[in-house]
Amino acid sequence: MTDTHGYECSPWQLLWRGLDLTALMQTESTFALSNGHIGLRGTFEEAEPRGLPGTYLNGFYEEHPLPYAEAGYGYPEAGQTVVNVTDGKIIRLLVEDEPLDLRYGHAGAHHRVLDFRSGTLRRETDWTSPTGRRVRVRSERLVSFTQRSVAAIRYEVEPLDGSELQIVAQSDLLANEPIEAESGDPRVAAALEAPLRCEYMTAEDYRAVLVHRTKRSQLRMAAAMDHEIEAPGGRDLRTDIAVEDDLARLTVAVDVAADGKLVLTKYLGYGWSAQRSIPALRSQVDAALAGALQTGWTGLLEEQRRFLDDFWNSADVEIDGDPELQQALRFSLFHVLQAGARGESRAIPGKGLTGPGYDGHAFWDSETFVAQVLTYAMPGAARDALRWRHSTLDKARNRARQLGLLGASFPWRSINGDECSAYWPAGTAAFHVNADIADAVARYLAATHDTEFERDHGVELLTETARLWMSLGHHDPHGGFRIDGVTGPDEYSAIVDNNVYTNLMAQRNLVEAAASCRRHPDVAERLSVGEREIETWVAAARAMLLPYDELLEVHPQSERFTEHARWNFESTPASAYPLLLHFPYFELYRKQVVKQADLVLAMHLRGDAFSPTQKQRNFAYYEAITVRDSSLSAATQAVLAAECGHLDLAYDYLGEAALVDLQDLHGNVRNGLHIASLAGSWIALVAGFGGMRDHNGELSFRPHTPPGVDRIAFRMCFHGSRIRVETTNGNATYTLVDGPALTFTHYGQAVTLDHDPITLPVPTPPMLPRPLQPSGRGPVRRA
Amino acid sequence: MTDTHGYECSPWQLLWRGLDLTALMQTESTFALSNGHIGLRGTFEEAEPRGLPGTYLNGFYEEHPLPYAEAGYGYPEAGQTVVNVTDGKIIRLLVEDEPLDLRYGHAGAHHRVLDFRSGTLRRETDWTSPTGRRVRVRSERLVSFTQRSVAAIRYEVEPLDGSELQIVAQSDLLANEPIEAESGDPRVAAALEAPLRCEYMTAEDYRAVLVHRTKRSQLRMAAAMDHEIEAPGGRDLRTDIAVEDDLARLTVAVDVAADGKLVLTKYLGYGWSAQRSIPALRSQVDAALAGALQTGWTGLLEEQRRFLDDFWNSADVEIDGDPELQQALRFSLFHVLQAGARGESRAIPGKGLTGPGYDGHAFWDSETFVAQVLTYAMPGAARDALRWRHSTLDKARNRARQLGLLGASFPWRSINGDECSAYWPAGTAAFHVNADIADAVARYLAATHDTEFERDHGVELLTETARLWMSLGHHDPHGGFRIDGVTGPDEYSAIVDNNVYTNLMAQRNLVEAAASCRRHPDVAERLSVGEREIETWVAAARAMLLPYDELLEVHPQSERFTEHARWNFESTPASAYPLLLHFPYFELYRKQVVKQADLVLAMHLRGDAFSPTQKQRNFAYYEAITVRDSSLSAATQAVLAAECGHLDLAYDYLGEAALVDLQDLHGNVRNGLHIASLAGSWIALVAGFGGMRDHNGELSFRPHTPPGVDRIAFRMCFHGSRIRVETTNGNATYTLVDGPALTFTHYGQAVTLDHDPITLPVPTPPMLPRPLQPSGRGPVRRA
Repeated sequence: MTDTHGYECSPWQLLWRGLDLTALMQTESTFALSNGHIGLRGTFEEAEPRGLPGTYLNGFYEEHPLPYAEAGYGYPEAGQTVVNVTDGKIIRLLVEDEPLDLRYGHAGAHHRVLDFRSGTLRRETDWTSPTGRRVRVRSERLVSFTQRSVAAIRYEVEPLDGSELQIVAQSDLLANEPIEAESGDPRVAAALEAPLRCEYMTAEDYRAVLVHRTKRSQLRMAAAMDHEIEAPGGRDLRTDIAVEDDLARLTVAVDVAADGKLVLTKYLGYGWSAQRSIPALRSQVDAALAGALQTGWTGLLEEQRRFLDDFWNSADVEIDGDPELQQALRFSLFHVLQAGARGESRAIPGKGLTGPGYDGHAFWDSETFVAQVLTYAMPGAARDALRWRHSTLDKARNRARQLGLLGASFPWRSINGDECSAYWPAGTAAFHVNADIADAVARYLAATHDTEFERDHGVELLTETARLWMSLGHHDPHGGFRIDGVTGPDEYSAIVDNNVYTNLMAQRNLVEAAASCRRHPDVAERLSVGEREIETWVAAARAMLLPYDELLEVHPQSERFTEHARWNFESTPASAYPLLLHFPYFELYRKQVVKQADLVLAMHLRGDAFSPTQKQRNFAYYEAITVRDSSLSAATQAVLAAECGHLDLAYDYLGEAALVDLQDLHGNVRNGLHIASLAGSWIALVAGFGGMRDHNGELSFRPHTPPGVDRIAFRMCFHGSRIRVETTNGNATYTLVDGPALTFTHYGQAVTLDHDPITLPVPTPPMLPRPLQPSGRGPVRRA
Repeated sequence: MTDTHGYECSPWQLLWRGLDLTALMQTESTFALSNGHIGLRGTFEEAEPRGLPGTYLNGFYEEHPLPYAEAGYGYPEAGQTVVNVTDGKIIRLLVEDEPLDLRYGHAGAHHRVLDFRSGTLRRETDWTSPTGRRVRVRSERLVSFTQRSVAAIRYEVEPLDGSELQIVAQSDLLANEPIEAESGDPRVAAALEAPLRCEYMTAEDYRAVLVHRTKRSQLRMAAAMDHEIEAPGGRDLRTDIAVEDDLARLTVAVDVAADGKLVLTKYLGYGWSAQRSIPALRSQVDAALAGALQTGWTGLLEEQRRFLDDFWNSADVEIDGDPELQQALRFSLFHVLQAGARGESRAIPGKGLTGPGYDGHAFWDSETFVAQVLTYAMPGAARDALRWRHSTLDKARNRARQLGLLGASFPWRSINGDECSAYWPAGTAAFHVNADIADAVARYLAATHDTEFERDHGVELLTETARLWMSLGHHDPHGGFRIDGVTGPDEYSAIVDNNVYTNLMAQRNLVEAAASCRRHPDVAERLSVGEREIETWVAAARAMLLPYDELLEVHPQSERFTEHARWNFESTPASAYPLLLHFPYFELYRKQVVKQADLVLAMHLRGDAFSPTQKQRNFAYYEAITVRDSSLSAATQAVLAAECGHLDLAYDYLGEAALVDLQDLHGNVRNGLHIASLAGSWIALVAGFGGMRDHNGELSFRPHTPPGVDRIAFRMCFHGSRIRVETTNGNATYTLVDGPALTFTHYGQAVTLDHDPITLPVPTPPMLPRPLQPSGRGPVRRA
């Protein structure tokens, strides 16, 4: 039995029962496994039917030329696209002489389960072949959080029709798997058609290794597999291993008794590098397999569960009386963890490693949403994501130089750190990515006091981004430090002056850079930062221009924004959304229509810069013109709705953020999950209903329960402590899970939390009129 | 003897003596012949050596896909590029058995002359073959102003070494001539490699016809040639004609006596169409040849001279004491005439028909500069250019619909009326092109009172562009009618609010549309324009927002422009110009740096909207930040410099505009002439030093002689009269050349000019300090 969305509700797992071939592309994304290093889409072991197969290695991409009908100085010439690498998930099955294929015969029982505590994807299928043979297939697979180069699959087949069956299993490594082109650009499609060239292959016993290299980007990868075979009740077991350029195959043939089964445990190892040689990479995957075999399947399962137990102990969220949301919130956190857990100096792409969407690129939301959650849920992963940015500093410095700017200019979209944005008004011009990185650094430092990271990476990241702002802005005799001609988060405006979000985030960047350099004068000196330079940062931050509309008494998102014509929402039919597919940029840019939270995001991340009244007025104003054509909006609207007392509305936005992929609200989950939106659902709960803020490193809470919900609880890490915050029946209870005592505020009241839980009263929320959204663009209301 | 620039000074012709193969590409442009319908670059008859051969038919183009790495709604999918069509200029020569090729042997005397009164290109070459045979080749060619489908070449060869010579001449029609790709885009290059497919060929006697069709755009063209052959003193004359897919050839072989010669007169006919059949086009070119043969070479020459005599009588400019400028001004006017004379409902491309630059596209400067000159020099040609725009109204209406706008939105760049701009911030967003077209209509109507044109074309053009502005702008509660998010003429700013030029030109557009509809209520009714709609135009025009900087007391080019950072000119080396090749758009857009007159152009075309003090202050302000990386700037700066009393500076700018191509100031004359800059030199003289204005249809003059120049004179047409204005020795003399009496003002004093010339005093010009330009970006100072 499946509900209307095809999933069954369950607090700790995602379960899909029954066969819906049309939903394969979508569920391959939601059932994807990853550890941030390796990603496997949730395709069936038998490879077909399938939607969009995908095996991804973080940072492994192919290049392709970026074409321009009218070229311009500084336009990036090469694009990067994530490659579907050698697929090790495949285990094909012949039952007697019939291939198991769910499109033929009959699948009696069939379900798939993504288990958030075991960290595995299980599958069980009872299948009757077209000629009536019945088997049960059970599989379980994992991408190891503890052995980051390893994935493993346990695959069992047992006869169901009471007689012996001949079972043939073919366990493959398959490279250059033909897939449908996702890109409309023939150059990208061409680059991704058989992108791998075989350099080395070997196979012996149950093990095989394939080494390939991309044609243009010249990245090398190795994929290896090894197996354990058990066949209780089997006879005449026979195996064979063969290898060719793009295929390694272990074939297992056995007659399985009526009460017997075939159990195949497949261990996969992946390695890749731009520099390492073929023998080095081969050694790497052989070693990974050796480790995996030594740990064994049961050991890998145990490690996986321990890892996840610890994670949930740090970061779990609970909500009573809304099982759909409870499931969605844990699903979200699980995928955020999968995206970031073991990225380790590689990027966290917008889709994680769940699909080829956005070409596998990472954007600003990796820092602003994903790293924000990781800072409180798994600080080491946040640190690693920022180390990736640091590792690309030379590219960012070169890019700044190319653009005529100082400091470092990080790319709008990239896999390896080079700018890949081919439309600069909504790409390179969105310089706020640099302040977002600085913000993530500052947040991480404030939440962890990780001095080693600060000295090795933080000071430099803050300094180089501060320098960028000094060259992007100027002190204008008309008054104030201006930042002109940039693009803020809202992609329905571009190339604007004094975007409030950008200016406030740049201000924070300058202030934090100054503070960090003053904390570490020796590091600052190494970066040639003197007190005079620091003073220019402080002066610019102090003079930062923030436009304000005196007539309407709101902040214009950017200068003059509120004087622009309002979008005609009344005459815009539902079919005309997302607007960017139906209207030219020109029309979007010059009107008051907001794709995604921009000023509202500023009111979250720089909430210290606005008065409560300003937040109220601004929020209502922008609600009326925000169409949420981006998945990066609902969570932030939830946070501000909650802060402004619109708890009902906040709850709707929380639901939308959390269900973005389970309900495929943007219609493109087939290309991968919206990791930042999923991260946003945690933010919506914790910063929205928990009222958690960390302005200037001061932790504070203003918790509420959502209307109609009896209890919410969440956990987080701060200053090396883990705490749990539970809100119920007009009270909030703070509990120290472990770590030293922690100080914060509850509704402005200072609290020091130690061994004993503290329960404090929660004020009754105000009853305020619900702000209006553009016609038809309110949050999705759940049943 | 050649001067430093390779040309010899002469008041009525352009003369190049001697052989400079490295300058071939450039001189092929300056020696190009055209009547606006057909264009022939100035290649040698013998085809090689050559720079960039080119034969162009107005409106004949090939399509190619426009690639986008990141696509967007409303982006044009197909580009258009002018095609080098079947070349009929070629007459190859064998002297005994040696091909005449100036790269071999020795050219004793060699010169080329473009004659502004005969309208022909003459060439004379004394050539000694490598083995010592000497011949003289004289050729003269024309593209007929009177028979628009016809070109003709008179080609003479005579022996010079006192003995009989065997002469073989091969007169060709050559299609798909291989040329070097101009485009960096491989798709464009591919589209232009052999773009023509042969559909029909025939040859008989001295005549041949080739019919070809482009592969993608499916345009059909026919090229035909016929010949007259004279060989006084020749013997054993033998001819042969042959034809194949891409080549038709008449071969003439004759032994020419020592005192004899071979004279070949070649008549060319061209026809092209998107719709007409092969037989129809063949008939068309046969008929064109029949006409040409009936008129004969001498007749064609006579017609050509009569046409030009009439033209110079309407439009000649004279300047004493500056022969270089005198030549350049007539050269300019001659090419403006060539570009526009017989366009007849086809566009006037930015390069005319002199080269493949800008892909052969027409831009806004066709109306703003070229049609402005034609309005006063050859009003019928201005009318025809505007009829082309009218003929594309349906495309412009469709484009407006696609963009979500009302009325008509004309393309930024096009050959056939469809938008071909692939970078919208500096293309489609430059909506001022629509007001520029309306301005040209209004100017033409005011100067001619051409009621038939107004009723058939003018009202509709004004109405549909007015409707566009109503949908582009809005009444803002903060005050004023705003036009946001558009790009003005200055391409170093883009997507700005309330560009003063755009707003003022839109204001004129709205006012003129209202006036024209009220003059012709029946036409207005046919266009569904009611009084209520007209009132909305008037109200918007009245409320048009014009930003003003109270602090600096200047008009910002667009809102907030003067608050942007100033470009750092001091640290910009000469090698960094043009800036757009060395800095990203981003950097250019957000700073105060001006590529080309924008606010200054507004002060010319809408000079009625500024006070003299505002003009002075604005001019000085923008002089200091205008780098003139566009050829569309110097002329306008000349006009305002003259109006503001900086006659010396105005004279420098006039020189730069007039010499843009003869001195190859932009380094790209090889791709064709800058027709609008050439037109601008007439404007600089007449509107600058003549002080001619026509605000609200009122003709006025404020003439001055340039410093150090004793006399200037110019002619122009107005209200069906032709007048001559001569300024010398502190007086201005107005003479009615023909037509009815004409009323205008001289320094504000009303004058009615009839049979008798009127001489009036000219005030002494003020002595004002010369405004400064950015370092190194002042006008080119002439020796």
